[in-house]
Amino acid sequence: MTTTPRVRMSPATRRAQLLDLGVALLATRSLDELSIDLLAEEANISRGLLYHYFGNKQDFHEAVVRRAVQDLIEVTAPVDDPDMVTRLAVSLDNYLAYVEANRVAYVSIVRAASGNNDTMREIYQSARNALTDRIFDAAGPAGLAEFGIEDTPGVRLVVRGWAAMVEQLVLDWIDDPRGISRPALLETLTATLALTLSAAP
Amino acid sequence: MTTTPRVRMSPATRRAQLLDLGVALLATRSLDELSIDLLAEEANISRGLLYHYFGNKQDFHEAVVRRAVQDLIEVTAPVDDPDMVTRLAVSLDNYLAYVEANRVAYVSIVRAASGNNDTMREIYQSARNALTDRIFDAAGPAGLAEFGIEDTPGVRLVVRGWAAMVEQLVLDWIDDPRGISRPALLETLTATLALTLSAAP
Repeated sequence: MTTTPRVRMSPATRRAQLLDLGVALLATRSLDELSIDLLAEEANISRGLLYHYFGNKQDFHEAVVRRAVQDLIEVTAPVDDPDMVTRLAVSLDNYLAYVEANRVAYVSIVRAASGNNDTMREIYQSARNALTDRIFDAAGPAGLAEFGIEDTPGVRLVVRGWAAMVEQLVLDWIDDPRGISRPALLETLTATLALTLSAAP
Repeated sequence: MTTTPRVRMSPATRRAQLLDLGVALLATRSLDELSIDLLAEEANISRGLLYHYFGNKQDFHEAVVRRAVQDLIEVTAPVDDPDMVTRLAVSLDNYLAYVEANRVAYVSIVRAASGNNDTMREIYQSARNALTDRIFDAAGPAGLAEFGIEDTPGVRLVVRGWAAMVEQLVLDWIDDPRGISRPALLETLTATLALTLSAAP
């Protein structure tokens, strides 16, 4: 008689798996609609065990949002291309694809992050900073020189403003494309970085 | 014996006066900190009368936010100047001055409007649309032609994105000016409109 060996997952692995499920559930529903009960049902484990992993609903939501923005940072990682504009265009394409595939979750995260919850705001702001700082860090001084710019506080300020514009354009376009094609939108998103940087204080 | 004639204010006037007081109180505290109790104390009238005017705290907050964004729309009204860039620069200067003078209230309104309250979001979005649509309506086709652009869905989309960028830049700069002067910031805000429009889809 043979027995299937029991695979014992570490608590960290189990928790990560549950978070992945949480993020997946979020793709088609808002953060408000994502309850511990729903996760328990989908994961087929007890609510008690979930509370063991996540403490309470607020902690659970924060963990899911942390995981979702981590996914976003990963899928938009710069590709290995010597041309900065190409790297930027590919990252923006992947960013747009992520928001298209996870629209409900993304809107919900932006809203949660813009609301009065300090932790959510901090998670979201550090993700946004990671996304924009990467433009400087991955490019290095040489990459920035391609754009004819230096790494100054004014330039960093404008890049953050540009990121807010990209977010608004993407959300507005997904809501109502207005006859604008996806490639045309991507071209605008890419072109506006160099243009706005040229007016940096 | 003379008596001071009693001035009987209409309910609408009285309500408007209370809203002005609400907006003034908001200049130095967040929306969450603005209670009916506080307004009653400052206005020296009963809480019961305030509930008569505003229903409940949520309705009161909505009325105050409506009033605040109305103020913002008024102070940024285009001046009578034939040059579109001048009109834009003056409106942006007044917008910046408003946010500087009402920073706590403004941040609080942006947060409330970005959160999960549909009414707040709608109030704020219509204000933002009013601010950006004005760029087209006040300019008219002739004004837009000065910028070398037409009134297309792509251009309207980009203007909304630019408005999100302006908001981000102003809030970031007020939080930490990074050694950037006010005139330098204003020049960036003004210049980026034409630049981003040149990349409209």
